[in-house]
Amino acid sequence: MDVGFIGLGRMGRAMAAKLIEAGHTVRVWNRSPGVAQEIVGATPVGTAAEAFAGDAAITMLSDDAALRSVIVEGGLLDGAGRPGLHLSMSTISVALAQELAAIHARAGIAYVGAPVFGRPDAAAAGALNIVAAGDAAAIERAGPLLDAMGTKTWRFGTEPHQANAVKLAGNFMLVSAIEAMGEAAAFAEGHGVPAADLLTMLTGTLFASPVYKGYGASISASRYEPPGFGLRLGAKDIGLVLRAAEAANVPMPFAGVLRDNLIDAIAHGDGDKDLAALATVATRRSGR
Amino acid sequence: MDVGFIGLGRMGRAMAAKLIEAGHTVRVWNRSPGVAQEIVGATPVGTAAEAFAGDAAITMLSDDAALRSVIVEGGLLDGAGRPGLHLSMSTISVALAQELAAIHARAGIAYVGAPVFGRPDAAAAGALNIVAAGDAAAIERAGPLLDAMGTKTWRFGTEPHQANAVKLAGNFMLVSAIEAMGEAAAFAEGHGVPAADLLTMLTGTLFASPVYKGYGASISASRYEPPGFGLRLGAKDIGLVLRAAEAANVPMPFAGVLRDNLIDAIAHGDGDKDLAALATVATRRSGR
Amino acid sequence: MDVGFIGLGRMGRAMAAKLIEAGHTVRVWNRSPGVAQEIVGATPVGTAAEAFAGDAAITMLSDDAALRSVIVEGGLLDGAGRPGLHLSMSTISVALAQELAAIHARAGIAYVGAPVFGRPDAAAAGALNIVAAGDAAAIERAGPLLDAMGTKTWRFGTEPHQANAVKLAGNFMLVSAIEAMGEAAAFAEGHGVPAADLLTMLTGTLFASPVYKGYGASISASRYEPPGFGLRLGAKDIGLVLRAAEAANVPMPFAGVLRDNLIDAIAHGDGDKDLAALATVATRRSGR
Amino acid sequence: MDVGFIGLGRMGRAMAAKLIEAGHTVRVWNRSPGVAQEIVGATPVGTAAEAFAGDAAITMLSDDAALRSVIVEGGLLDGAGRPGLHLSMSTISVALAQELAAIHARAGIAYVGAPVFGRPDAAAAGALNIVAAGDAAAIERAGPLLDAMGTKTWRFGTEPHQANAVKLAGNFMLVSAIEAMGEAAAFAEGHGVPAADLLTMLTGTLFASPVYKGYGASISASRYEPPGFGLRLGAKDIGLVLRAAEAANVPMPFAGVLRDNLIDAIAHGDGDKDLAALATVATRRSGR
Repeated sequence: MDVGFIGLGRMGRAMAAKLIEAGHTVRVWNRSPGVAQEIVGATPVGTAAEAFAGDAAITMLSDDAALRSVIVEGGLLDGAGRPGLHLSMSTISVALAQELAAIHARAGIAYVGAPVFGRPDAAAAGALNIVAAGDAAAIERAGPLLDAMGTKTWRFGTEPHQANAVKLAGNFMLVSAIEAMGEAAAFAEGHGVPAADLLTMLTGTLFASPVYKGYGASISASRYEPPGFGLRLGAKDIGLVLRAAEAANVPMPFAGVLRDNLIDAIAHGDGDKDLAALATVATRRSGR
Repeated sequence: MDVGFIGLGRMGRAMAAKLIEAGHTVRVWNRSPGVAQEIVGATPVGTAAEAFAGDAAITMLSDDAALRSVIVEGGLLDGAGRPGLHLSMSTISVALAQELAAIHARAGIAYVGAPVFGRPDAAAAGALNIVAAGDAAAIERAGPLLDAMGTKTWRFGTEPHQANAVKLAGNFMLVSAIEAMGEAAAFAEGHGVPAADLLTMLTGTLFASPVYKGYGASISASRYEPPGFGLRLGAKDIGLVLRAAEAANVPMPFAGVLRDNLIDAIAHGDGDKDLAALATVATRRSGR
Repeated sequence: MDVGFIGLGRMGRAMAAKLIEAGHTVRVWNRSPGVAQEIVGATPVGTAAEAFAGDAAITMLSDDAALRSVIVEGGLLDGAGRPGLHLSMSTISVALAQELAAIHARAGIAYVGAPVFGRPDAAAAGALNIVAAGDAAAIERAGPLLDAMGTKTWRFGTEPHQANAVKLAGNFMLVSAIEAMGEAAAFAEGHGVPAADLLTMLTGTLFASPVYKGYGASISASRYEPPGFGLRLGAKDIGLVLRAAEAANVPMPFAGVLRDNLIDAIAHGDGDKDLAALATVATRRSGR
Repeated sequence: MDVGFIGLGRMGRAMAAKLIEAGHTVRVWNRSPGVAQEIVGATPVGTAAEAFAGDAAITMLSDDAALRSVIVEGGLLDGAGRPGLHLSMSTISVALAQELAAIHARAGIAYVGAPVFGRPDAAAAGALNIVAAGDAAAIERAGPLLDAMGTKTWRFGTEPHQANAVKLAGNFMLVSAIEAMGEAAAFAEGHGVPAADLLTMLTGTLFASPVYKGYGASISASRYEPPGFGLRLGAKDIGLVLRAAEAANVPMPFAGVLRDNLIDAIAHGDGDKDLAALATVATRRSGR
C-alpha cells in the first residue's frame, strides 16, 4: 500500500521500518527535521500534507498538542490529496479522539483509532499489540498495515475513541501495578525483607506477566535510568485517564492515588526517570 | 516424618493428604469434629495436644483468633510431648507471628513461619508456593514436609514473621490487581467498551499472569459465586496489612482505598461472595 | 467612578446594584439578553465592548469558557475605548488568570484578580470577602469599587493569579469540610447517633463557623434543594484545584477523594443539587 | 457528692480541681504515684479500688490499654465498695465502650460514656463540652459533676458507646480540618502565597471557629512544639475511627488519607510534635 507516516519518534521510526520491510511504499515526515532521512527505504517528504495522502496516513505523535497542531491547525483535512484513511496510533485523550472523529467525518476521511501497547523494542520486532476501533471496513482495509506492525490487532467497537479508552485503561493498570509493587516493597522492607526478594518471588509466580516482570526487575534493582517509559509521560497519561473518567462519571480512587504519587515523584526530581521510579515514593514516605 | 496437623479446612485437608501421599505419618485434629475422620490414611486424634507433637506440628487455621485459641490459650506450649518444630502455615498477623516466635523461643520449640500462596486446587496438586522464614536449620529439617506440599519453598530471612509480611504483601498486590481491573472495567464500560473485551486483551498480553487471568475471567463474566477466596476474608487480610504497615511506619494509600471499597462491597451484601466482587464497587459508584 | 459590568448572574446583579447604590455610574452587559434591563439605575449597553470601557471594567462570569469567549475571543482587548483597569472577579483557573495577565500586559491594560467569597445574599448586602492580587496601584484605584461590594478586601501579592489560587484554596477547604461532615455523619449514624445531633453539637462548638453551620444545617436536614452553590459547580472548582496543584507539583489527596465523591454524586443524579449533597455519598456507600 | 477520680493527667487534674471547687468530696488516684498529692483539697488514696467507690467514680485515662488494665484487669468491678455510677470520660474505642457497658451491666453498676472536647486550659476553666450517652437516670444523677466540669453536656442516646462514637467523629473532623489546611497551604505556597496570609483570611471569615483558628495559627507560624494535642495521639484516634467505621461498614476515605499522612509524619520524626505538624506532610511531598 501507499502510506504516509507522520511522527518519527522512537516508536514511529520502528513502526515505519516494519511497513517498509513488509513491502509498503512509505512517505515519512517528522516535525523536527533530519530524522526522516535516517529511515532506510522510506521517502522523506517536506510537508505533513505530502505525507497525509495515499491509501492511508498513519500518525504516531507524542501527545494531544502535537497531533492537534499537525492535523487540525495544520489544515491537513482541507488539503487536496487526502488519504484513503487515517490510522491514528498516538496515545491521545478520549476527548481529542472524539473531536477528530467528528472532524474527519465532516471531511469525508475514514478515521481509525489504533493506539498500541509495546515499547520500541516490540515495535522493532513488529510485536506490538494494536487496539483498534472505528468503521469496520476501514479497519479491514488497514489490515495489511496493522499486520506489519503488530502481533495482533484487537478490535473494540465502531467509535474510534473507544480504542483510546482501552489504551488509557491499560496504562492505568500498568501504573497501578507499579504503585502496588512500590507499596508492597516498602512494606516488606519495613519488616526487614529486601524488595528484590519479595518481587522476585511474586513476579515469578502469581504475577508472572510482562508488566510485573519488567517493572519488578527495575524496582528490585533500583534502576530507573535510562527511562523506557518516562515518569512524566506516565503522569500525563493518568491525567488523560482522570479526565476521561470524569467525562463518563467513573470514580477512580486508584487513579487519584497515582496522580498524587506521580506528582510527588516529579516534585522530588524524578520526572525524567523511568516510570518505575514511582515505586520510590512509598519508600521515601516511610522515612527510609 | 511423624507429623501432627492442626486445622483441616479446605486448604489443610488437601495439604495433609499430600503429606500422607509422600509417606509421612500424619495425626490430624480439627476444631469442628468429624472432619478428621475423612482424611484417608491419617490418624485422627482427640485433642490438639496429641497433634502438637512428633517430629513436627503443622498449623493451618483460619485466623489469628483460631491460632491463638488453640496454641496459646489451649496451653499447647506447656504440654509434655511437644513437637520438634512448629510449622505455622496460617495467614496471620505480623504481630501474632512475632508474639508466637517469642513464646516458642521461651518454650524451647523451633517456630517457622510458612504461609502459602495457592488455592485449594493448588494444595491438592502439591503445587503451593510456600514462603518460609525462621531458623535456617529448622526450615531445613522441615524440608521433606514443605516439598510434599509445595512446588517451591521461598526463603525470607530468619524472623518467622517475615514470611507473614511477605504473604500479606502478596495478598495486598492481589487485591490491588482486582481493584485496578475493576476501575479499568468501569472506565471502559463508561466509554461503551465491554469489560470482558478489555480484560481478555490485557490479561492475554501485558498482564498474562495467574492472578489477572483468574480474577479477570470472574470479573468479565460477573461470576462471583461460589467464592474461591471470600471477599470478607480479603478484607480481613487488608486489615492485617494496614496494621502491620502502621507498625513499620509505611503509608499505603492503595491499601486505604482497598479497605474502603471492601467495606463498601460488604455493606452492599457481597461479603460472602468471591473477592473478585470488589470489582463491582467501581461500577456501582459510576451509577450503572 | 464610571464602570462597566459584564456578567449579570445572581452574583453579578447583586454586585452591580451595590455599585450603583454607592453612587458609581454603571453600564451593564450580559450574554443572555433581558437581564441588563432589570437592574435599576444601571445603563444597559448592547455589546460587551461598550461595557469594557470607562474607569474600570468588572467581569463576573460563570467560568473559564465564558470569560475567554467574551474577553479574548470577543477581541475586547484590541478595542478602542478600553477601560482604565479590568477587575476580574470570576472564579477561574489559575492558568487562565496567568494567560489573561500576560495578554492584558501586552495590551497595556491593568489587570486585577479579585474573586470573592460569599453567596448572592452576601453580595446583596455588600458583605463579600474579596481576595485581590495584582499591581498595587491598580488595586488602590479600584478601592472605591471593592469597598462598595465587599466587607473587606484581602490583598495577596502582585500576580493576579494568586488571588485565584486563594479562591480555589478556599473552595477546596469548603468542599473538604462538607466531605468531613458527611463521613462523620455516616459514621455516627452507623452507631445509632442521628447526624443532626452530631452536627448540631460540633457546629455549635469546635466548628462554629459560617461554612460548617450553613452546610451542617443542610446535611442535618437532608435539604439539598434548591441549590445555593451547585454540586456540579463545586466539582468544576475541584477540577481547577487539581489542575493548578499539578502545575505547582502539590499532591492533594483530599482533593482526589473529593473528585471521586463528587463524580459519584453526579453519577447518582445529584449534580444539580446543592453541594451539601456530597454528604450523601458516604451514607450511600455504607449501605444505608 | 462523694466522688472517686482515677487518672490525673493534665486533663484529669484540671477536672478534679473543678469538682473540688464546686464543693464535691474527691478521692483521687493515679497510676504513677506522686501526682495525687498535688491536687489541693483532694484526698489521695492508695489504690484504684478506694477511688472506685462513693456516689460516682470518674475515669480519665489515656487509652484503651490503661482503662482496661485499671478497671477490668484490676478487678474493680468485683470489689466491695463499688460506686453508684461510673462516669467513663477517657477517649477510648467504641468496642471497649461496648465491652465495658456489658461488664458493668452484669456487675450492676451504672456506666455512662462521657468523653470531652477541650484542651487542658478549657478543663481548668470548667469549659469543656461533654458528650454523654447511657442510662438517662444515671446521666441525670451525674448532672452536678458534669456541670462542674463542663460548659455544657450534650446527650447522645442510651448506649454509652454512642458518646465515644461522637467523640471520635469530632476528632476525625478536627484532624480533617488540619489536613485540609495543610493541603491548602501547600497549594497556596506553590503559587507564591504565604500560608499565613491564606489561613489568616480563611480562619477569620468562612472558617472562623475555634479549631481552625487555633490550628491555623500553629500552621501559619510553623509552631509545632510544645504539643497541645500530640500527633501520635491523633494517629491513635484515627486508628480508633477506622476500626469503629469498619465495624459499622462505613467507608471513610478522608480517614484513610489521614492515616497515611499521620504515618508519614511519624516516619519523619514528628510523632511527638503537635497534631498541627500533620500540615507539614503536604509541603514536604510538594518538594519544598
